[in-house]
Amino acid sequence: MIETICALATAPGGAIGIIRISGPKALEILSHVFQGKGDVQSFQPNTIHYGHIVSGKEVIDEVMASVFKAPHSYTGEDCVEISCHGSRYILNKVLELLVQQGCRMANPGEYTQRAYLNGKMDLSQAEAVADLIASTNKATHQMAMSQLRGNFSSQLAQLREQLLKLTSLLELELDFSDHEDLEFADRSELLELTKTIDEHITRLARSFETGQALKQGIPVAIVGKTNVGKSTLLNALLKDDRAIVSDVHGTTRDTIEDTMDIQGITFRFIDTAGIRQTQDEVEQIGITRTYAAIEKARIVLWMVDEEPSQEELNKMCLRSENKKLIILRNKIDKTENKSFTIVKIPLVEISAKHGLHLSDLEQAIYQAANIPTLQEDDVIVTNARHYDALTRSHDHIQRVIDGLQTQLSGDLLSEDLRQALDTLAEITGGQITPNEVLGNIFKNFCVGK
Amino acid sequence: MIETICALATAPGGAIGIIRISGPKALEILSHVFQGKGDVQSFQPNTIHYGHIVSGKEVIDEVMASVFKAPHSYTGEDCVEISCHGSRYILNKVLELLVQQGCRMANPGEYTQRAYLNGKMDLSQAEAVADLIASTNKATHQMAMSQLRGNFSSQLAQLREQLLKLTSLLELELDFSDHEDLEFADRSELLELTKTIDEHITRLARSFETGQALKQGIPVAIVGKTNVGKSTLLNALLKDDRAIVSDVHGTTRDTIEDTMDIQGITFRFIDTAGIRQTQDEVEQIGITRTYAAIEKARIVLWMVDEEPSQEELNKMCLRSENKKLIILRNKIDKTENKSFTIVKIPLVEISAKHGLHLSDLEQAIYQAANIPTLQEDDVIVTNARHYDALTRSHDHIQRVIDGLQTQLSGDLLSEDLRQALDTLAEITGGQITPNEVLGNIFKNFCVGK
Repeated sequence: MIETICALATAPGGAIGIIRISGPKALEILSHVFQGKGDVQSFQPNTIHYGHIVSGKEVIDEVMASVFKAPHSYTGEDCVEISCHGSRYILNKVLELLVQQGCRMANPGEYTQRAYLNGKMDLSQAEAVADLIASTNKATHQMAMSQLRGNFSSQLAQLREQLLKLTSLLELELDFSDHEDLEFADRSELLELTKTIDEHITRLARSFETGQALKQGIPVAIVGKTNVGKSTLLNALLKDDRAIVSDVHGTTRDTIEDTMDIQGITFRFIDTAGIRQTQDEVEQIGITRTYAAIEKARIVLWMVDEEPSQEELNKMCLRSENKKLIILRNKIDKTENKSFTIVKIPLVEISAKHGLHLSDLEQAIYQAANIPTLQEDDVIVTNARHYDALTRSHDHIQRVIDGLQTQLSGDLLSEDLRQALDTLAEITGGQITPNEVLGNIFKNFCVGK
Repeated sequence: MIETICALATAPGGAIGIIRISGPKALEILSHVFQGKGDVQSFQPNTIHYGHIVSGKEVIDEVMASVFKAPHSYTGEDCVEISCHGSRYILNKVLELLVQQGCRMANPGEYTQRAYLNGKMDLSQAEAVADLIASTNKATHQMAMSQLRGNFSSQLAQLREQLLKLTSLLELELDFSDHEDLEFADRSELLELTKTIDEHITRLARSFETGQALKQGIPVAIVGKTNVGKSTLLNALLKDDRAIVSDVHGTTRDTIEDTMDIQGITFRFIDTAGIRQTQDEVEQIGITRTYAAIEKARIVLWMVDEEPSQEELNKMCLRSENKKLIILRNKIDKTENKSFTIVKIPLVEISAKHGLHLSDLEQAIYQAANIPTLQEDDVIVTNARHYDALTRSHDHIQRVIDGLQTQLSGDLLSEDLRQALDTLAEITGGQITPNEVLGNIFKNFCVGK
């Protein structure tokens, strides 16, 4: 027996709050607490009804109830959304009433889990819902939307088709295994197809690095001597960013202070406040921490107010190997206009204090990130579970490639092919997915989705 | 030309966010950003439509759009509610698109202001909407709901009818002013009617004290010597309260720490932390602050661990004149069971540390508050603007009563009667309300309502 669940789907505290009910008894339960025109149970799907939520004689709220009917709803079940006044007292009271009438409070992500279980979306799409809700900028939004709209799923379907073709070709080979010449012709064809599949899987797996960087923000270390202007720069950069965010009423910024978006991508400034504080005490601690900051970064902003010596330059280049190093000459309003002789390393000249050339700096940071411009339908893997499945699938395919090259017989390859298929199927949940895995996926959702 | 407005109607941060559009171009603007089945402009009222919000080729979100048509909507205008995924990026993006298409971002309370201007509710009902959203417990909810449902408005309408009757009787008296005996008979009748009206107005005005206490919380001072257990008690009381609040998922408590609800009424504990801190330093400061705390309170909890002397008792009774004084004997688990000899003052014996008899204390606090049990339709004035109008109206009526008693001629009374009528009409906004007044009323609303 499927339970009927309820939850607050909006954040508490706004002008209105939406309470969602989903399950076979959604309308019956509504009928016990809702007073409006007409019989609740005969409400047409996709219609909205004005009325009151009542508890006995007490009127709890004036509401609008929206009715959806299985299978044409988000969960695929009968659903009701009650639009209430956004008072916590009212919202709690309505939920209390619904629970009294037989609803259960929904678990995090339970609506989306039901949507998946009812075939409204596959597992990777369900995961995209959480990513979409958490998206904070153009890049994360685009990746989640592409995944939700099934672009990743359709690439996986394509891979599955090719793997099935491969399997059937191998079986064909087994059937004709007497004809030695035929086998050899097939083998090179099979190898070609397998390599194409593997390239596709590898491309998807490799996109995870970009996906992670975009999702978590690209780490940027700002390093340099004390009083060179690092915190002034951070304040100048972040102030600009905040101003943009507060353009729209009703938004508050509760992300970490030291991230900012440049052209739709989040950059995460590694906090070097500790460095500033400890440098006075023991110079060595400061240096150690600077190195640690560089270690975690993808981009290093080396802030200077005078040209570094060749030795300093060499040291920094060595430390920031494999990173994008940008030399940031600060205080250009103060120093005489003596050009630096540094070559080969990007140099940006600014005044953090007076906010001069900050847009040049942003441009340099954006370019250093080297993020490919995303197209609408691009698939970027952002989920560690997917990355793990792709990597394991790649391992199986690699064994198939090795086997094909070492003339292993077809029946020895089919097990790896089957496992490659199963592993890919984990991503969309095409195979039966254990409850434990589902629990892990949905537990990080917000309640009400 | 009425502008079409848009705003986020829910708090940012939930699973879903609702964006409201209201105004003559609501559907036209929707048609430019919404892609779904059928022609947006021919959508039927009170129906819900699945589709995508698009910006050129880019898909911003998968949404449900609910359509309402004038005059059958909250504002009385054409309205659309777009149910989006609750990502701030998405919500900002959708608002941005709507503004590009000609919407203006709504001011706080602008939807409700339009509802008032379009005759969907009177001004006191519009104000009740804000109170309803802000309601945090049974009492504040009930007062706001009663006002929203028009109970206050209908009492005002009744008063208006009686005042009009009075006016016409006065005019009648003027017409027959030659017949002296007739006049005297009318006068006592008029006086009776006027007094009845004044009693009603006074009753409403007096309820403001209760309304304020219920809305802002009833102030309770906890006073007593250091180490008698005041902060232990506060923690014990508030912990219980928090546990109740956190029963429902998704609620967070951002009210002031030192309030708690007892049987649906908020009590506000006056912070005597300052007293505790300064008593060590200068005893005198502590006493002064205690007195200040008592001054602001309606209920005084005097916490002791041994029986106070007659002198102490006399002092405290003098200080807490016109307040409800409760003596709170703490540490009953420690002291031998020697009964106090105090009479006439309510005594509660507890152990704050072990949480003994706290419910007795809550019951005593609740009783001391002496709040009449509210009935569904009871009218309690909670709004200072209404109180002010009622008080002024009462003043005019008083002048009418004086005039009637001093045999002032009818034409001299009619001006005060007219002003009493106008003043009452300010509450519901029956008269033309200046923009400045409207601005003041709606500026404290949340955006999106």
